[in-house]
Amino acid sequence: MSNEIDQKVNERTIDKDEKQTLKRTLEEDIETAWDRLEEQQPQCGFGQLGVCCNSCKMGPCQVDPFEEGPQRGVCGADANLIVARNLLNDIAAGAASHSDHGREIVETFYETAKGESQGYELLDTEKLKNVAQDVGIEVEDRSDEEIAKELGETFLAEYGMIKGGLDFTERVPEKTRKIWNKAGIMPRGVDREVVESMHRVHMGVGADYTNMLLHGLRTALSDGWGGSMMATELSDILFGTPEVTESTVNLGTLKDDMVNIVLHGHNPILSDVVVKAANNEALVEKAKEAGANGINLVGLCCTGNELLMRKGVPMAGNMLNQELALATGAVDAMIIDYQCIFPSLPQVAKCFHSKIVSTSEKSKVPGAVHKEFHPESAYDTATEIVELAIDTYKERNPQKVEIPCEPMEMVAGFSVEAIKDELGGTFEPLIEAITSGQIKGVVGVVGCSNPKVQHDYGHVNLAKELMKKDILMIETGCAAVASGKEGLLVPEAAEMAGDGLQKVCESLNIPPVLHMGSCVDCSRILTLAGELANALDVGIDQLPAAGAAPEWYAQKALTIASYFVASGFYTVVGLPPNTHGSQKVTDLLTDDLEDVVNAKFDVEPDPKVAARMIERHILSQREELGI
Amino acid sequence: MSNEIDQKVNERTIDKDEKQTLKRTLEEDIETAWDRLEEQQPQCGFGQLGVCCNSCKMGPCQVDPFEEGPQRGVCGADANLIVARNLLNDIAAGAASHSDHGREIVETFYETAKGESQGYELLDTEKLKNVAQDVGIEVEDRSDEEIAKELGETFLAEYGMIKGGLDFTERVPEKTRKIWNKAGIMPRGVDREVVESMHRVHMGVGADYTNMLLHGLRTALSDGWGGSMMATELSDILFGTPEVTESTVNLGTLKDDMVNIVLHGHNPILSDVVVKAANNEALVEKAKEAGANGINLVGLCCTGNELLMRKGVPMAGNMLNQELALATGAVDAMIIDYQCIFPSLPQVAKCFHSKIVSTSEKSKVPGAVHKEFHPESAYDTATEIVELAIDTYKERNPQKVEIPCEPMEMVAGFSVEAIKDELGGTFEPLIEAITSGQIKGVVGVVGCSNPKVQHDYGHVNLAKELMKKDILMIETGCAAVASGKEGLLVPEAAEMAGDGLQKVCESLNIPPVLHMGSCVDCSRILTLAGELANALDVGIDQLPAAGAAPEWYAQKALTIASYFVASGFYTVVGLPPNTHGSQKVTDLLTDDLEDVVNAKFDVEPDPKVAARMIERHILSQREELGI
Repeated sequence: MSNEIDQKVNERTIDKDEKQTLKRTLEEDIETAWDRLEEQQPQCGFGQLGVCCNSCKMGPCQVDPFEEGPQRGVCGADANLIVARNLLNDIAAGAASHSDHGREIVETFYETAKGESQGYELLDTEKLKNVAQDVGIEVEDRSDEEIAKELGETFLAEYGMIKGGLDFTERVPEKTRKIWNKAGIMPRGVDREVVESMHRVHMGVGADYTNMLLHGLRTALSDGWGGSMMATELSDILFGTPEVTESTVNLGTLKDDMVNIVLHGHNPILSDVVVKAANNEALVEKAKEAGANGINLVGLCCTGNELLMRKGVPMAGNMLNQELALATGAVDAMIIDYQCIFPSLPQVAKCFHSKIVSTSEKSKVPGAVHKEFHPESAYDTATEIVELAIDTYKERNPQKVEIPCEPMEMVAGFSVEAIKDELGGTFEPLIEAITSGQIKGVVGVVGCSNPKVQHDYGHVNLAKELMKKDILMIETGCAAVASGKEGLLVPEAAEMAGDGLQKVCESLNIPPVLHMGSCVDCSRILTLAGELANALDVGIDQLPAAGAAPEWYAQKALTIASYFVASGFYTVVGLPPNTHGSQKVTDLLTDDLEDVVNAKFDVEPDPKVAARMIERHILSQREELGI
Repeated sequence: MSNEIDQKVNERTIDKDEKQTLKRTLEEDIETAWDRLEEQQPQCGFGQLGVCCNSCKMGPCQVDPFEEGPQRGVCGADANLIVARNLLNDIAAGAASHSDHGREIVETFYETAKGESQGYELLDTEKLKNVAQDVGIEVEDRSDEEIAKELGETFLAEYGMIKGGLDFTERVPEKTRKIWNKAGIMPRGVDREVVESMHRVHMGVGADYTNMLLHGLRTALSDGWGGSMMATELSDILFGTPEVTESTVNLGTLKDDMVNIVLHGHNPILSDVVVKAANNEALVEKAKEAGANGINLVGLCCTGNELLMRKGVPMAGNMLNQELALATGAVDAMIIDYQCIFPSLPQVAKCFHSKIVSTSEKSKVPGAVHKEFHPESAYDTATEIVELAIDTYKERNPQKVEIPCEPMEMVAGFSVEAIKDELGGTFEPLIEAITSGQIKGVVGVVGCSNPKVQHDYGHVNLAKELMKKDILMIETGCAAVASGKEGLLVPEAAEMAGDGLQKVCESLNIPPVLHMGSCVDCSRILTLAGELANALDVGIDQLPAAGAAPEWYAQKALTIASYFVASGFYTVVGLPPNTHGSQKVTDLLTDDLEDVVNAKFDVEPDPKVAARMIERHILSQREELGI
């Protein structure tokens, strides 16, 4: 039995620090995603191939991949169409998620500009002016509030259909814009593209898989250069543009002598104010009265990344760490906003004293305490929640606390602005390093965790392989956290890199893997790519660059990968989207798209092979550029 | 064999006229939706129960309804959540479809107001002024173009998030608005609610099924009182508000001596101009030169309903007639726009000389001729397509033409305005008939065809039963067409009605079933309900009224049923949404919703039983009202 458990633990994760906690979940029957995945075996083959359609009441229909059973659904849809419908629906859900998150940021920003929010301010007024200028707003002789009000109104209108285009596409290199226009995928409005996608998936609308999936790219672009980019930029103005910062990561960031509050989800609107409340002297005093040495805030998932990037708040882990964090028995309150939050959390919390506190009207969770959060009463709600955590701490059973490790050091905060700062105020040194070949290329490694992949295996091994090949990584989301836990986010990690990259890292004192933020912050990767391409006077598709998502699970990741490809990045995913039931759709994504956007998807589960594929692409890009 | 075919034909439809064509498809191996449904048997039980979730890459996951296998997906979602996720995704797709159709109407209307479209005009300027006043636009001393331009801009903004509300909710009775505000389901913007739905279905966002499905109601309301209502109202202004008109219906509307053009889909933007082009003398002459006696335009599905309502264009049939129309061998061109168009059409067309002509960028169909349609070149494209039909006619093989029947007479065109006109310019006589009990109540019978139900059985039998009970029907979409084919849309059909309704019909010379238009025109039912409720100073939920969708198949129908219920109509559907895998969601929809919106869903496949349930509801409503 013990051997069996050890084997399972080893199969489930490469993170030696979390193995102890994973073992505990197995020994004490604390159910986790890995257990549920095991129980779900075998998973439906039709679904995995994408050839099951249950979108109308004539169905569910399935196309037989062996061509022995039906080849068309009741409406007449074949495998190509069914696969495309499902994929477009997924891309729409991903774009909707990021963009609706962006919507809340825009609304909070606008309320703050009008002085109607509580606990927020325009923290980075320099960035306010820069972003305003980027979208053509006059900044001379105007107050910050005036500029912000107009910027807020401008961005609110990005969600409408009156303008007919997205302001941030001005950041897109001219050559890339030409490609989009030719392909008919220039995005028109943030919500419009998602809604049109959902129209196209309806029976009797989209019937041509290529036509549908091109609209999928357009929808994804409206996320990357629209909803997500607004979320990132306005979050920077409200909460501060990230600067290079030291912090710590892994389950060891939880403290056995402190009130532990874990902030989990994606939207920094809530968590930023919780940080303020937790620093309130009176509340700290209250925690001490309750017997703790203070209040320990840690992040998890992308809300964690937002806090880490801007405030250096320690990070408990990535998506698959959410149940493990609770399984330490040390969490007093896990405050959730939305996205990637397992509905199972209250079940795990019940094994201990821990409380799950839901805060968004959109994401109520059965079994959680609901404290609804609104910008106009943000600080009051945050205070209430911190008080709840302190009260809950009193119920903690120290005997049940098992924190498995010491925290790992890491460096984060690499916004586009911070990278420029580190380079001395200009991208020239980076471009120089790339053209000279010291750095062969840059790869955006992004995406989630997924229990179908040994936890962190894909991220960590891809990063290690790529750095050996003198390729610099810019990472977000769960990928960045995985690298952090493995110790790759410190300058010393450059010792594992090839000579060229190692020298660059040493001279700048930066890690070979740069943490750029949350998954919404993949828009920073786009902004950086736009800057580099403009500097080189090329399209993004010509850069010696690529994207990768080795362990993705979410529709959001599919959307990110889609806007990466549409923007011109060759992108390698570690798990296939559910398209293998259609050879034609698979060919489109992994081959034919090259004729449309000069970029394509590839699927490769083995990170070592993926690294070779990426290197080959980057070398060929360099050759084309003559560098 | 022949017996077997006869049996199948009888099982598949109650429409005696189409049986001959159905028989032909079976004898000549022309594949139809019924054949494909047969081939898809048995359909997946998990899918039918709604407990299969394939939205993220940790899946597909299935909850075992017998509680012997897994009870949670990998993320931890239980059956309640999985069912709610799927349902919300469906409602979003339905709302997106109507609202995106509305978007194109708004855009065309706005272009027409600015004089930038081709072949369109502001046909009903009286309605223009009425609608403008409804949404608070000044009309005195302004030109029609000025009013239209402002109205267009106002409606474009309904798709954005700046206003934060929908103008047409001003038509909603105060008491109903109070219910929405209390339930938190007042819709905020057309696109916003759909996108937020797609955010909520993402893993880790919505986790509470009630919370999710209340947002489903809000999303549906943004369709009914938003996207669909704009589509209806602006279509009336552009193409004319329907007046009571006589026409014909069924496959017999196709003519063996004419160039037959079938207009199929949902959006009148294209078809309206095709009607103009087909009346062009030069084209009629061309048709005669080709050997035909002229050009015969017929409608199908809801594009057909749009043309029937406003221009009296004959109607070939409803959704399940689309393949049968082709199977007559008499169709020269079937022009499609979008929605409910079987991707199989080109396969059926290939058995004959017929051409499928796709016209929307959103709905390209492999095997169809694509003639893309844009408002600024509408008339030219329409002309081109009519010419193509004439050319195709030359290839028709008269030996293969089998038109099964003579057309059935019918009366249509019952817009809210037309009903008021018929009543002598006021709703008083209708209200009087209702309060006196001559008419016991009014039922909106709507929705699609579905090969899982014997074709037209549900619609026709429900209508016949209800009219016996002195209940007046207002119908749209496939339901109205089914009644038309059965001969229920003529004043003489009142002979089948109860005494009270019969007298009312006789005195007004109207049928007991009023054809109100396409499925988007279910918004007319809302407008009428709002007028009646306001006149009686009650909420819509207090009216002696109900909704029914006996043969629905589409997500759009699910959305309509949802906004019916949210608006206050008790609504009986003939097939269950895929919710039976969750007792709690089923209870919410069929019971608990009553506490939220004073209305609920019921599921009843037997139209006679459904009629009794509806009568019971209407009688209890009357009792409550004291009438």
